[in-house]
Amino acid sequence: MSNVAPGVTPDAPAPSAVSNRPDVKRDAHPFSRGQLEGLMTKRFFYIQAFEIYGGVGGLYDYGPTGAALQANIINQWRNHFIIEEEMLELDTTIMTLADVLKTSGHVDKFADWMCKDVKNGEIFRADHLVEGVLEARLEGDKQARAKESGAPAAAAEAVPAEGGADDKKSKKKKVKSTAVKLDDAVVEEYTSVLAQIDNFDGKQLGELIRKYDIRSPESNNEVSEPIEFNLMFESSIGPTGQVKGYLRPETAQGHFVNFQRLLEFNNGRVPFASAQIGKSFRNEISPRAGLLRVREFTMAEIEHFVDPEDKNHERFDEVKDIEVPLLAKDVQESGKTDITVKTIGEAVASGVIDNQTLGYFIGRIYLFLVKIGIDPTRLRFRQHMSNEMAHYASDCWDAEIHTSYGWIECVGCADRSAYDLTVHSKRTKKDLVVQKAHKEPKVYDKLVPTIIKKNIGPKFKKDAKLVEEAILEMDQKKLAELESQLKNGSAQLSVCTGQTFELTTDVVTVEMKTIRETVREFTPNVIEPSFGIGRIFYSLLEHSFWARAEDQDRGVLSLPPLVAPIKALIVPISSNEKLAPLVKQVSRKLRSAGVASRVDDSNASIGRRYARNDELGTPFACTLDFASLSKGTMTLRERDTTAQRIGRIDEVIDVIRQLCDGNLDWEGACKILPEYSGQQDVDE
Amino acid sequence: MSNVAPGVTPDAPAPSAVSNRPDVKRDAHPFSRGQLEGLMTKRFFYIQAFEIYGGVGGLYDYGPTGAALQANIINQWRNHFIIEEEMLELDTTIMTLADVLKTSGHVDKFADWMCKDVKNGEIFRADHLVEGVLEARLEGDKQARAKESGAPAAAAEAVPAEGGADDKKSKKKKVKSTAVKLDDAVVEEYTSVLAQIDNFDGKQLGELIRKYDIRSPESNNEVSEPIEFNLMFESSIGPTGQVKGYLRPETAQGHFVNFQRLLEFNNGRVPFASAQIGKSFRNEISPRAGLLRVREFTMAEIEHFVDPEDKNHERFDEVKDIEVPLLAKDVQESGKTDITVKTIGEAVASGVIDNQTLGYFIGRIYLFLVKIGIDPTRLRFRQHMSNEMAHYASDCWDAEIHTSYGWIECVGCADRSAYDLTVHSKRTKKDLVVQKAHKEPKVYDKLVPTIIKKNIGPKFKKDAKLVEEAILEMDQKKLAELESQLKNGSAQLSVCTGQTFELTTDVVTVEMKTIRETVREFTPNVIEPSFGIGRIFYSLLEHSFWARAEDQDRGVLSLPPLVAPIKALIVPISSNEKLAPLVKQVSRKLRSAGVASRVDDSNASIGRRYARNDELGTPFACTLDFASLSKGTMTLRERDTTAQRIGRIDEVIDVIRQLCDGNLDWEGACKILPEYSGQQDVDE
Repeated sequence: MSNVAPGVTPDAPAPSAVSNRPDVKRDAHPFSRGQLEGLMTKRFFYIQAFEIYGGVGGLYDYGPTGAALQANIINQWRNHFIIEEEMLELDTTIMTLADVLKTSGHVDKFADWMCKDVKNGEIFRADHLVEGVLEARLEGDKQARAKESGAPAAAAEAVPAEGGADDKKSKKKKVKSTAVKLDDAVVEEYTSVLAQIDNFDGKQLGELIRKYDIRSPESNNEVSEPIEFNLMFESSIGPTGQVKGYLRPETAQGHFVNFQRLLEFNNGRVPFASAQIGKSFRNEISPRAGLLRVREFTMAEIEHFVDPEDKNHERFDEVKDIEVPLLAKDVQESGKTDITVKTIGEAVASGVIDNQTLGYFIGRIYLFLVKIGIDPTRLRFRQHMSNEMAHYASDCWDAEIHTSYGWIECVGCADRSAYDLTVHSKRTKKDLVVQKAHKEPKVYDKLVPTIIKKNIGPKFKKDAKLVEEAILEMDQKKLAELESQLKNGSAQLSVCTGQTFELTTDVVTVEMKTIRETVREFTPNVIEPSFGIGRIFYSLLEHSFWARAEDQDRGVLSLPPLVAPIKALIVPISSNEKLAPLVKQVSRKLRSAGVASRVDDSNASIGRRYARNDELGTPFACTLDFASLSKGTMTLRERDTTAQRIGRIDEVIDVIRQLCDGNLDWEGACKILPEYSGQQDVDE
Repeated sequence: MSNVAPGVTPDAPAPSAVSNRPDVKRDAHPFSRGQLEGLMTKRFFYIQAFEIYGGVGGLYDYGPTGAALQANIINQWRNHFIIEEEMLELDTTIMTLADVLKTSGHVDKFADWMCKDVKNGEIFRADHLVEGVLEARLEGDKQARAKESGAPAAAAEAVPAEGGADDKKSKKKKVKSTAVKLDDAVVEEYTSVLAQIDNFDGKQLGELIRKYDIRSPESNNEVSEPIEFNLMFESSIGPTGQVKGYLRPETAQGHFVNFQRLLEFNNGRVPFASAQIGKSFRNEISPRAGLLRVREFTMAEIEHFVDPEDKNHERFDEVKDIEVPLLAKDVQESGKTDITVKTIGEAVASGVIDNQTLGYFIGRIYLFLVKIGIDPTRLRFRQHMSNEMAHYASDCWDAEIHTSYGWIECVGCADRSAYDLTVHSKRTKKDLVVQKAHKEPKVYDKLVPTIIKKNIGPKFKKDAKLVEEAILEMDQKKLAELESQLKNGSAQLSVCTGQTFELTTDVVTVEMKTIRETVREFTPNVIEPSFGIGRIFYSLLEHSFWARAEDQDRGVLSLPPLVAPIKALIVPISSNEKLAPLVKQVSRKLRSAGVASRVDDSNASIGRRYARNDELGTPFACTLDFASLSKGTMTLRERDTTAQRIGRIDEVIDVIRQLCDGNLDWEGACKILPEYSGQQDVDE
């Protein structure tokens, strides 16, 4: 992921939640984030960490359902990317030597701007403060105007820019508004500032704070000039306190520092990709937005190393016909957010996507997200604009998913060029390069400097090494200049320290030589697809959640069987002891079939147990009754439709196995198992 | 895991490496740790982290083979424990609120003793320093005695107490010895100190340092008094620096703070178990011994919550006949290390193992370790001695695995009683209890204090709350005393602050009342099996490694197919392009059969490719030759025996699938596939 903290993009139209199952009416009630969050807590998907100690912002614990859903998403990721593409999986340390992150640029640049209430010391993220105060003023303006015109201020207008926040805990700390009318010009100015809020640096944020007299919202005290706050958690390694370490902000550096070992493992050839799934950390100033902005998170990152002269991809044909929703940079730069649907093949051919490898991964990312249950109508690939992209990147696309918080960056897919390997190699003086044999030796002429070792030392003494290095780093143009200056007597050499030295032909000569090159040596470029698993996890939950038309309080999580935490619930119809051995037997059989199941033999009514099941996202329920004992049958309930079918126990188990493996859909299952007509009332 | 740093137990006899495959001669060469470690680096199983930056002690990166082996071990663990026993999996944060670890005791007690060279500042772990110096003196004594007697000092005697260290990098920094003879009494004294080295606290280590004039080995300077060094990595959460956090030293606390949510998820019933797999951290003073003592490691922990009045286990019958090698505490306390082999049933019945649940897990741990490939003859369960165990624990057994470093604690299995839940509940004032309905209401008499609220406040003012709490905490015995003292006029009450108060009947009365109890409320006890995945990983590698009888340099890793990083290698016999489509086809077929495979189409000879394969621990190789094209056959090579069989491609793939699933052994495979007789020389 780039050094810039990935954000929420609230500027775009929000497509409405649609069901991808025509047989299920999922849009009877508007989406309620509060209801979803209530369910998450009640069914222990996740919870703020250290709840009994009062909780800590930005840290979340995953309970049994959440941990299983996350494990299933990761498992699918591993199959889809690592196994399917024979990537080299890594598991590198979280604790990272400070030096490494100094080289990568994180020590200097991985920061946000914060300011302090000058009297009570309260801390704000500067951009959030400016945003909150200006939004409150605009809201106050609307209230004043509404009063003037006698109309009540519309409730919808009180919702903060991020949209849809209907729960106190997780939305941005909102600044209270007072009904004060603003000049039209001021309204326009504030609106324009808010539209660009992500683009201001600390100095500019400070200017805005002074210009608009922005103060600490609760105390009304002045706030300090914004200062940089590095977002890495710092610690020290070992007992002396002298070896500084940080918790990694991304897994990527662990790939780069091991590049040479990976290359060797791959018999010296590129392209190849390494992959890693693991925790990363970001010490947010004031975390908000639930799982979308957290201090500890699971990432899955791929570093695909390619020859910069050949970014074609061997398997490009497999994705070229996939149609993906693209929001290109030129569209955004013209102030629009219109999505164009194009095939990957077209997008690469027309240069919208820079190269085949980048296109290949965009296609694979699309397939992965849709497979695990992300609604394709709420998914887009947004290209970074030129001013947004790291200076070394040549192209970058984010997979953004639409949620009640707006469009969320969930996967970044960047061409990082040779930046990372180059800086680490320079810093450590270790070669991080690929050697590729030419098919035919390449013969060409080239200026080559010869250093006269016996003279350079005595002449420049302690600076000799510096001078030598500066000469050896010269490109052909500089060598040509040097050659001509030396012919005229002497040359001036400026080195990195700012010193200047005089060179003469007794220390260096430059000659044109014929080079016969059999091997090309190059630093590979890196294409990096980087997945925020927690963001995908949360978006998937929003896309899966709905309430039954007949009862708004009956929530359902329509998670695909592929990732559902538990695939099948086993429900004995009563607590009669005669059913117990059969329950155990079905449980064992499902386990051997590789289907994660759970028994609910609680005293709750069967309808309540089904409802609980719906909230847990369990796609299937097997009900055992006395006919199961006498006739060996079992009913199968499907979560989304609540339809029930019946069959012999082994037959039903086999159908469930096929449904979970993705070899059968519900329609197919209905062809195998007849409808269940008895006891229709159990699901009421 | 307990707060005490788990250690290496070097005191016991080392069983020799044995092959568990009678058809393979694995003991032709003595085990060489140096050779194994060379292989680990060459084949990128693991490497010191930040190698190109000079490396950092105690931090290791896992490469593609190591990461896959680790993932497979974890996967087996998840199946064996979480899935098979329907445990509740958790994923809680690594970054931990300091308060939580203050309550658990880690802030105060999770420490080692260190001392400093007073002049150059070099830092030593105090027990390692004493150990190293005394060992060197004993070695010097041996050399001197050998010289006296004219016999050469036996080479074996130069090996440090840990045993078998044959590689400089990973063994404890050894102190140089000089040939100086010691008095017999001194030799005896040193030997006795070394035997108890793990039992000394800081003060005692300081006394030993002064008594034996122990100095900094290289500088010969004096060293400082031992001071405590807390082994947790510290950081701060958020921008103010006021919220202190530590990286967790174990995953256990994440289970305990979520206990009430877990209980609710389990419908309020015990027993149940939660489980978590994740990274933990320990800022070692001077890490050594490779993967066995590291600063960042993967743990897998189970917290099984039980009714303290019923520690029987529902599935005990399934393990009761398993024979396990036990080293009980009374044996150790009598100075011996003899292992007794007993069935779990016998051990629990005779009270050697405290209860069924503990016995059940010991059985399950044994089955797991043997299944993934640990040599059962180098595995034992060692019971903690009374002085070794945390004060709250009622019984504790470590699964120890024998390696070239001695016996290594790889799994701890402790009955932690109600300690953890009690301290967190007390600190947070949140109930962490189970309510269990009595079958019949329980009716009994009980002394009950009644506090007269209107008088206690005015009488004790600010201390009133303190007095009230002290009264409410009294047990029946104390209440009986209070009752009789009150009858005689007044009673003296001592509270936790040390103050004493006079109680009279105007503030408190005590009466015998009849209680009708319908629900029993209790704090569950916790049985905790805690696995160090890295230690198991390393031990497994030692148990799997051997060298071919015909060539000591040809290492083989006989990893079981179940956990081997790659299950099958695909080897085209030549680089002829005609073979390429077939190679792809076989690769695809193996993938659909769920078999992780890899192609080796490098230019190396087939023999070298097989040898590389042996080093990677890949159990099977499929060789494709021109007969594959013409006749559709493929040969199958088995790694340990190097035997080759032949069959139709689909048939061979099916055999491999069964071998990997554990449904077929090699003997069975040989019954299906005939011996391959052509080109016998390819494996030479």
